[in-house]
This record gives sequence, C-alpha cells and structure tokens, in this order.
Amino acid sequence: MAHWGIETIPVPVDAEGIRVDALGDVAAVLVTPAHQFPTGVVLSPARRRALLDWAGDERLIIEDDYDAEQRYDRLPVAALHGARPQSVAHTGSTSKSLSPGMRLGWLIAPHRLAADLVAAKHASDLGSPALAQLVLAQLIASGDYERHLRRMRTQQRRRRDALVEALHRHVPQLRIEGVAAGLHILATFSDRRDDIDDQQLARHLEKLGVLVQPLSWHRATPGPGGLLLGYAANPPDRLRAAVDHIAEALRSRPW
Amino acid sequence: MAHWGIETIPVPVDAEGIRVDALGDVAAVLVTPAHQFPTGVVLSPARRRALLDWAGDERLIIEDDYDAEQRYDRLPVAALHGARPQSVAHTGSTSKSLSPGMRLGWLIAPHRLAADLVAAKHASDLGSPALAQLVLAQLIASGDYERHLRRMRTQQRRRRDALVEALHRHVPQLRIEGVAAGLHILATFSDRRDDIDDQQLARHLEKLGVLVQPLSWHRATPGPGGLLLGYAANPPDRLRAAVDHIAEALRSRPW
Repeated sequence: MAHWGIETIPVPVDAEGIRVDALGDVAAVLVTPAHQFPTGVVLSPARRRALLDWAGDERLIIEDDYDAEQRYDRLPVAALHGARPQSVAHTGSTSKSLSPGMRLGWLIAPHRLAADLVAAKHASDLGSPALAQLVLAQLIASGDYERHLRRMRTQQRRRRDALVEALHRHVPQLRIEGVAAGLHILATFSDRRDDIDDQQLARHLEKLGVLVQPLSWHRATPGPGGLLLGYAANPPDRLRAAVDHIAEALRSRPW
Repeated sequence: MAHWGIETIPVPVDAEGIRVDALGDVAAVLVTPAHQFPTGVVLSPARRRALLDWAGDERLIIEDDYDAEQRYDRLPVAALHGARPQSVAHTGSTSKSLSPGMRLGWLIAPHRLAADLVAAKHASDLGSPALAQLVLAQLIASGDYERHLRRMRTQQRRRRDALVEALHRHVPQLRIEGVAAGLHILATFSDRRDDIDDQQLARHLEKLGVLVQPLSWHRATPGPGGLLLGYAANPPDRLRAAVDHIAEALRSRPW
C-alpha cells in the first residue's frame, strides 16, 4: 500500500479483534475477520456489528478472507460481505488452499467501485491468466477441490495439535494465542519474559535450522515479543524436533 | 500509460519506421521495431542506429518485440536490445505465439532499473503465476514450442497469402502496407478514396459479419483511412468470403 501512495494507520487489536472504537475517520479499513493475522483472534459478533455500523454507506471495509477454509474446531465464520455487500470488498485466494504460486484470487466489490476496478485491472495486465483459472474450475466441478480441502484440514489439524502439545510440554512459558485455525501459531512470552528480544531469538533459531518469524516484525508499535510458528509444511515429528530446539534456545540465553 | 499518469506524445512513422528526428527531448520511447503496429513497417538499419544514438546513456528505449516470431519472408530482424542493453528495455510475450490468455511475457531491462522493477512487481502481485511458466518451460525443453511456431508460421503465411491475393483480385483499390509478417494486414484506401470514413465502413462490415478495425482508431492525428484485417483466426475460404463482403461494401456506398 505504501508503494502505491496509500497512507496506512495502524489500529489496535484485542481478544475480540480490531478495536472499532479506535478506527477514527478514515476512508477504508483492511481486516481479516475470520482469523486476524498474526494474533489469530476471530472478530467477535459485537465487533462485526460495530464495524458494519462504522462503515455506513460511505466507508469501505476490505475483507481479506484469509485462512477462511483452515478452521479446525468448528465451521468458519460467515464473511462480513454477506451482511453489507454495498460496504464490503471481499477478497480471497487459493494461496493457502492450493499454492501461492497459483496467484489465484478473487474480489467481490461494491457495485459503485466496479467500473474503476475494471479500468485499473485492464490498465495493469488486461486480465488474469486463463490456465490456472481453468484448472481451478475443473478442480471445483469434479469435487477434487472440496476433497483436497478436507484432506488438508485433517493434516493441518494433526500438525497443529502436535505442535501445540509439544509446546505445552517442553516450553510451558510460551502462551499460545488465537483460535484453532490457519497455518501458524502465535506463541507469546509470559509476562516475566518480556525482556526477550524476539528478533534475536529468531536469528538464533535460524542457526539451529528452525525458521520462525518474530512477532515484532508485524507490530506497528513496540510491545511484548513472540514467535509465529508455521506448521503447514512439516510433519509432526519435525515440528516436535523444532520445539526441542526452541526449548533449548530459551534455556541457553544469552545467545 | 495514461491510466498510470504517464504523458504520451505521438511520433510520426514513415516507410522506414519511427521518425527519430521528430522524437525531441523525452525520457523514453516505446517502439515495435520488428513490425510497427499498425503499419507493419520494419525499422530500417539507418533508423535503428539513429534511435540508439538518440537514447545515449540517459534515455530509455522500450522495445516491444511484438510479432517477432511471425515473419514469413525472411529471418526476423535482431532485437534492438542486443545492440545496447544499457539503454533498451526489451519486452516480449507468448500472446501471439500461444494465446493472449496465457498472460506470459518477459522484460529484459537495463541493470539500473532492476531494483525499481522488482519493487514495483512485488507491490503489484508478489510475482507471476507459476503454472503457465512451467507449461512454457516444458514446451521449450521438449522442442514442442519451436515446432508449434513453425507450424503456425506456415499456417499464417497461407492465410495471409489467401487474403492478399483475394484483396488484389477483388478490391484492387485497396493498397496493402507493410512486410510479410504479423497476424494482420493494413489496407489503405488509394488517394482518390480519402473521403471514405473507415469507422463507418467498419460498422457496415460488422453488420455483414466481418469484424475489422478502422485505421483511424490507431491514429494520433487525422489522416487517410484504412482497415486492419486480422487473418490469424480464419482459414483461407472464410478470408476470401470476407473479402467479397468488403468489395461489395465498397461498391454499395453510401451505407
């Protein structure tokens, strides 16, 4: 957004999702209601109503329906778009469900924006490649896409469970945030550990062969550290081995 | 370009291609040296040298290597890029050779622009879809791409020959411009016919089932009319039937 000259203003997030009361008078907001990145919280029903009220008929909610399919404990929450299509531009992609390399996504925008969007798309690239769209259409029509999502959910849930269990057992000082969804866990340091520099820890873990993202990368303002642990690409035994490295790293300070 | 806020200045084209002496002091020029669109002329050796001299080390030549593979009478001309890679951003695509729906293209840019281009590409779409690129890589590695180009050249040449022959025979008042290349012919009205409104003629032909583009669509300044006749999508007999309609239309004025 900065590249295209759009000014962005960070907004606080708590256990119910975005703090709508802190939004202020801006033209648009970008949210991930199904599973906030990186905290993993789901936008609460009260906040959903507050956000739609905030938008009214003038403002725009951009709903990135990120990770919507990857909910393991219950049905995904309904998209905001359905509640107020004239205020919500709904976006989704197959980057998590198939592969980021597919570069396949969609945007369901309010009618008043359609002409401008078509002009911008045309001026950007004339249109999206047909091949990947045809592949996706066939995957959907054959039922293979739905079967693939079910298989992935089972696999990801097993991986997440293995990671959470190993963290509870071997690194109890880490607190696991967010709901059972997505492809990563956010683990924060308990209050007594707020002197841990998560970027230093991430660099140390990288040397041990464990790639994690420090939470501070995703913070707009300073605050307690944490680790984002992606589990999608590794089977349970490798995740358990990674947790052993994390436990060892926390024992062996300073690095 | 206008959509992205770039001011464009038209430059005259004659039988040798772009009039380099008319370029003036601009930062960049966009050219189609292998086969100017829509006139079909090839940039002459003298003009190629003049254009490279004009660019020097400060200005940029954007070379759209449009239709480079579709030359029927001799080998394609070498790309400008090879003569002065530090001044030329060379672009090509598979839109003519495979399909526009592939949305596959490439850009070989001067080194000094690489970092900005990577940043702009990243901010646009993170990167291009992998699937179509993998398909093209396999087509190239297997030799199928080269075989396809040869087969297409033979087929397009046959279609072009049929169209040119029918135009000469049935509509001798049309003059065919450009070299034996590309996927379309530009037919201009001889001098006595400069009262023909090519947009009216194109609309009349559309009613008869013949889709052509009026030359005036592509003119930056007023001038004699003409028709762009694409032949790639139709076999010889359909092209001959289309010429019959054009001949009939020119006989039956006014429309």
